[in-house]
Amino acid sequence: MKSTASFDLLKASARAPQSISKDETRRETERIRQELVGWQNRLYAENKRSVLVILQGMDASGKDGLIRRVFSGLNPQGVRVQSFKAPTDEERAHDFLWRIHAHAPRRGMIQIFNRSHYEDVLIARVSGLVGTQDAQQRFTAINAFEKLLQQAGTTILKFYLHISEEEQYERLQARVNDPTKHWKYEAGDAEKARQWPRYRAVYEDVFRQCSPKSCPWHLVPADQNWYKAYVVARALRDALVGMNPQYPATKQLRPR
Amino acid sequence: MKSTASFDLLKASARAPQSISKDETRRETERIRQELVGWQNRLYAENKRSVLVILQGMDASGKDGLIRRVFSGLNPQGVRVQSFKAPTDEERAHDFLWRIHAHAPRRGMIQIFNRSHYEDVLIARVSGLVGTQDAQQRFTAINAFEKLLQQAGTTILKFYLHISEEEQYERLQARVNDPTKHWKYEAGDAEKARQWPRYRAVYEDVFRQCSPKSCPWHLVPADQNWYKAYVVARALRDALVGMNPQYPATKQLRPR
Repeated sequence: MKSTASFDLLKASARAPQSISKDETRRETERIRQELVGWQNRLYAENKRSVLVILQGMDASGKDGLIRRVFSGLNPQGVRVQSFKAPTDEERAHDFLWRIHAHAPRRGMIQIFNRSHYEDVLIARVSGLVGTQDAQQRFTAINAFEKLLQQAGTTILKFYLHISEEEQYERLQARVNDPTKHWKYEAGDAEKARQWPRYRAVYEDVFRQCSPKSCPWHLVPADQNWYKAYVVARALRDALVGMNPQYPATKQLRPR
Repeated sequence: MKSTASFDLLKASARAPQSISKDETRRETERIRQELVGWQNRLYAENKRSVLVILQGMDASGKDGLIRRVFSGLNPQGVRVQSFKAPTDEERAHDFLWRIHAHAPRRGMIQIFNRSHYEDVLIARVSGLVGTQDAQQRFTAINAFEKLLQQAGTTILKFYLHISEEEQYERLQARVNDPTKHWKYEAGDAEKARQWPRYRAVYEDVFRQCSPKSCPWHLVPADQNWYKAYVVARALRDALVGMNPQYPATKQLRPR
């Protein structure tokens, strides 16, 4: 996992380092997942702070599968996944962070954003809805918003799942050919894949503009599902170790 | 598991039938949990119907633990837990189903209510906030509300976790004595335990009034965690088998 502040996606590898063993890594991921169960329990019991995991990545970069691989096994009472699709009419009638803010994690929770406010400076730019100047305003707003959450006790982890053009092509084909994956296929998939260079450019802009030291983007090589799961699980574990949540003495902080 | 339409809680056993082996049951629960993973995936992909699991039970009847035991392992993207605490000022300024309705499951999801609108005809009655006549109006409203959800494609499973007075006493003591459980302790716990007979009476009323054939309450013997998990996991699996969700041919129903 690398910090992405000045990252060239064209040169970034989408694969695990050669030195890394798949079997060992899988076992290690499993071990980390066990650790996460305990940490989550403490975070929930402490009921003071929270974790927000933001997942972005091109179509078929494996956001859904990653959520399953890393977060299945945690107590669902302390985990919430929020998927952001195209905004509704009502959502569009507000500022772009309005619908996001409503899903900020409450104390004690691990919240996962499957896509996020970053779509509003990604697809919104590629589609021409948002120009360079508006994007700049949004970057400023995003940085302020994330700082607000951090000051309220939220640890934010931002992951970009980096998939290669070749692997993406394979996966989108599978959606056509595999009956259990048909439902993921969308007519626009191929079109969006063709816009790859444009996406790359706006992603790089995001990494430059929205990676303050306290809240960096992390690039996750995403062509191999086992490696991606390991990188994210480890980063989450490390974050929780750093937070070191404690069982409180009584339930005073949890009024019913 | 028994349907509760005319149930006498004083006579109901809170323990597993003697003939049942703990080890075998645990293995069977594990097997069912594996099955659930596949069913949930289909439900989510189908994106037409949903499941609502309503959990009620006295303090320390093990609602939190049950959620962990049965639903950990499912893809958190398709599961959501909503805990209902004492209503906020804003919630109290609306009808009692307003805050509940906001958390009705969306298509494709398994939603779990940890406590529910039933608190408004349980603790609300024991505390004297709601009289017999008001309760009757609420029963009618609840039945209509649940029918509305069913007509929109939601399968509702209502479980009452039935714990004995002795076991409850043990568990509340553990919250005082075990440092990892202190945070669950509340000053009112002992007081609420003393109101047991009143709770029993209002629960029985709920079972009589809110168990239409299409939406019965199920009584789950809850003194043993392994048995409780088995009963609920099995009921959920059976419900999903009955629904038999299908992978759709394309993603047409999932606009982004």
